[in-house]
Order: sequence, then C-alpha cells, then structure tokens
Amino acid sequence: MRRIKLTIEFDGTLFAGLQIQEQGERTVQGELEAALAQIPGAKAKIYACGRTDAGVHALAMPVHYDSQDSIPSDKIPFALNSLLPSDIRALAAEEVDPLFHARKSCAWREYRYRILQRTMPPALERTRVWWIPQSLNLVPMRHALEYFLGTHDFAAFAVREGSGNAAEPRARLEERSTVREIYKVHLEVRPAEGNGREIWLEFVGSGFVRGQVRSMVGTLVEVGLGKRDSNNIQALLEGGRRSEAGKTSPPQGLYFLRAGYAPYPRSG
Amino acid sequence: MRRIKLTIEFDGTLFAGLQIQEQGERTVQGELEAALAQIPGAKAKIYACGRTDAGVHALAMPVHYDSQDSIPSDKIPFALNSLLPSDIRALAAEEVDPLFHARKSCAWREYRYRILQRTMPPALERTRVWWIPQSLNLVPMRHALEYFLGTHDFAAFAVREGSGNAAEPRARLEERSTVREIYKVHLEVRPAEGNGREIWLEFVGSGFVRGQVRSMVGTLVEVGLGKRDSNNIQALLEGGRRSEAGKTSPPQGLYFLRAGYAPYPRSG
Repeated sequence: MRRIKLTIEFDGTLFAGLQIQEQGERTVQGELEAALAQIPGAKAKIYACGRTDAGVHALAMPVHYDSQDSIPSDKIPFALNSLLPSDIRALAAEEVDPLFHARKSCAWREYRYRILQRTMPPALERTRVWWIPQSLNLVPMRHALEYFLGTHDFAAFAVREGSGNAAEPRARLEERSTVREIYKVHLEVRPAEGNGREIWLEFVGSGFVRGQVRSMVGTLVEVGLGKRDSNNIQALLEGGRRSEAGKTSPPQGLYFLRAGYAPYPRSG
Repeated sequence: MRRIKLTIEFDGTLFAGLQIQEQGERTVQGELEAALAQIPGAKAKIYACGRTDAGVHALAMPVHYDSQDSIPSDKIPFALNSLLPSDIRALAAEEVDPLFHARKSCAWREYRYRILQRTMPPALERTRVWWIPQSLNLVPMRHALEYFLGTHDFAAFAVREGSGNAAEPRARLEERSTVREIYKVHLEVRPAEGNGREIWLEFVGSGFVRGQVRSMVGTLVEVGLGKRDSNNIQALLEGGRRSEAGKTSPPQGLYFLRAGYAPYPRSG
C-alpha cells in the first residue's frame, strides 16, 4: 500500500461542494471516489486539504488516497482524467510518506476572491466573480484588510457548522477552536476582460474556519461601500459575534488557489 | 420608429450559434428576440454585426433593432437584462441613425483566439480555450501571422457555406467574394491562471469569411508544431484550396471582441 498525493482543479459551479453529502448530491469527493473505484487496487476514499462549499472553485487542491495499484505516479493524472467528468481535472500526482495527510499535514492554504466592478452584470464570468456595480473605495478596504494579519479568533467570521455533516456530533463542533493565523493579505486591481475592473483579494493562512474567507470579503466590501468603518474589523476580531460582521459573499468568486506542506516563508 | 444599437456579451457554450437555425435550436438571436418581444413597441427582429458559430463567445457584439418603445436608451440594457437568460447580457444601448446597420455599416471587427499550453487539460477554462499540451514554437508562428496582413482572397480559410442557412440559395453563396482585408494581427503570451501559459492570437479586419479565424488559427498551430512551413501561408493566400490549409480550430477558444463603425485607425 502506498499513499498518493494528488493535486486537482475543479469548476465548482455544478457541485454541491467538495465533501460528500448525506443527500447524495453531486460532489467533488463523490466524483473523485467514483473514478478511483475504477482503478484496481486503489482505495476509493479521498482526503482533501480543504472543504469548499457549492459554487467555490479550486485551481490546485491537494488530496490524498491509498492504493495498491502499480501505475507510475506521473501516469496517474492521465488515468484519472480519462475517468473524471470534465469539470474536475487531476493535475499532478506523487507518492508521499504514509504519514502524510492532505488536511492535517497542511501548513498553509491560499485563497483568492474575485470581484468584478462594472455597470452591467457579466455573461461570460457569471459563475466566476462577485459582480458589484457600486464603486468600492479601496483606501479603507486596504486599511481594513491589514487587521486580518496575524493570529486572531475568527468566530465573528465563522459560519455555524453542524447542518452539513451529520457524522460529527454537535458537542464536538462547539469545542472546535476558531483561532487561526493569517500570514499574508493582498489586494490587487486588474483590468477586466472586456470592460470594467476586477478586485482580487488574496489570503494565505494556517487554515480558515468554515465561511471565513467569504465573510471577511463580505465585511471588506461593506467597508469599501462606506457602510462600515475600517477600524471595525479590529473590534470584530476581539470578540465580535457573527451577526456583527458583514454578510457572507457569494461562493462563485472564491478560489482555493494552492496549499503548502512546509512552513509558509515569512517575508521581512 | 427609432433604431437602437445594442452591445451584447454572451457565453457561447450553451448556444447552437448566434443566428436562428431552422431546427429551432437555442440561439443568441432567438433568446434576444424572445426578450424584445416582451417590450411593447419593439420589433422583435435583430441584426447582428457578426455571425458566430456554436461555442464561440462575444465580449461586445453590436446588434440593431427597430422600436417604438419610449424607454430611455440608457435604461434599455437594464430592461433587457431582466428578460434575458444569464448567458446573454446587454451592455449598452444607443439610438442611431435609421440607416445604421449593425452588419452592413461595420468598418472593422476584432477577434481573439485563446490557446492554453500546459500538460493537463483545464477544468475551469474547458469551455474557454483550446488546450494544446504540445509545445508551440512562437518564432515561425509570428512570421506566418504577418502574411495574413493586408487584402487577400481567404478562400483557403473559408468554411463552405450552405448547410446552415436554407434561406440562401446555393448559387448566391458561390458568387460571394472571399476577399477580405486584415488591418492588424497580434500574438501575445500571457501567464495562465494556475499553471502554464496562454497564447492569444488577435485579428482586426474589414470582415471575416465564415470559419476564417478558426482555420487561420488551426493553420498557425500547425506552423507552431513544426508540421507546416511559415512561408506556406503565402501560397495558401495565393490560390490555395480549403483542403490545403490547416484544420479548423475548436470554437470555444474564439471571442468576438468588438467592432467599429468608423475606419480602423491605421498605425504608421
């Protein structure tokens, strides 16, 4: 038996999320495990680095599985891509230490959120960006963004868990810490294809609680719209409640970019 | 009665093309005319600047229609977007001279073709690019591209017409000239989101015969793969036959970018 680390890309539009649901909806995990089940010797059970919601995309998400097959590692993506639906693609595979775990061994994860600013809603990018026609003031947004850096309790930015995964007892969920460390934040303005501009918000962190990136983005947008003071982020990180932070931004603007298994290189 | 010039964006993935087909398949024209039919006073008949095939996208395609409605021009896109499916969007509208014609008055059209170069096929961009894993040599491709500049008979790059539009007699089709002028060609290399690189091929011309951009791109790719000499383009433009040029490239990499109604500004 060997352990395989697989890097996948997926278009989240037609998935009910990454993780298998009780209701039997279409999930990334379900499709991957169905493909693995067709490879003799592979254990059709995958463990993913992150858990993404319905509509959220991934450019390079690590997952792992165990297998007794004898396919050379560099041929595994080709084998899997012949079995997977076209909205999931295996990009790379490598044999790793049997103690490697795609989620538990992960040292950092990187996410991007794309906002499209233009007068009219997009046709081509409709499942890829959050369209915001109102002007966003980037100066207070950049200021607010800096507050997220470092170690904080992100309880005010956490979606309450428990409804999605019946296998996990509620008591255990409530015990879970919402403390995380954010290593890097980044705001970038880019010309949009066609017309308008895009605002890319990027975050690198030790990990993110469920809904964290989307509610940080929703709160930052309220700052950009002038509906919330940038200093308010500090108060939210010092004991704020979920109801006090901004709304969760829509899923289609969010991308799991990549993850690392060595400590994140600190700059400066 | 007034004439409205409307600029639209569409995602061609789920359309059988722009123009209404006899078979009643889903078309951009069909959806636009169905939306216009719900605006009292508007004549539910549109004329588009270009005719794009199934799977081809448009970022800013001009169309026109006549109407007796009294909606202010700047409100028309909002009205139409509330009636259109999400893969077509009205971007702008203006009242124009009654002699304006979206196709016949057009002085130039601009197209882009996107090629994705990386080892593995894309999930997110699967309906947006032509994925080519083999390396393309850009030096001969740039050389070949220059031959297309100027006025030529593009018969070798024209898809034979007649099957799609039963309303047009075959004799008339065969009379049609395949002479066009290309004002600008451009090749650009860009980093792809995630990994790999994209090659963007752009063309501005007086007009393009059916299938022209896609067969020019298919021929250029053969040059990049070393299967065809760059000088061969010249022979194709001097009396070559369709069977001698390269294959038509897949539709999903092609974008109608924009069009102009004043002479294209010549550089130099």
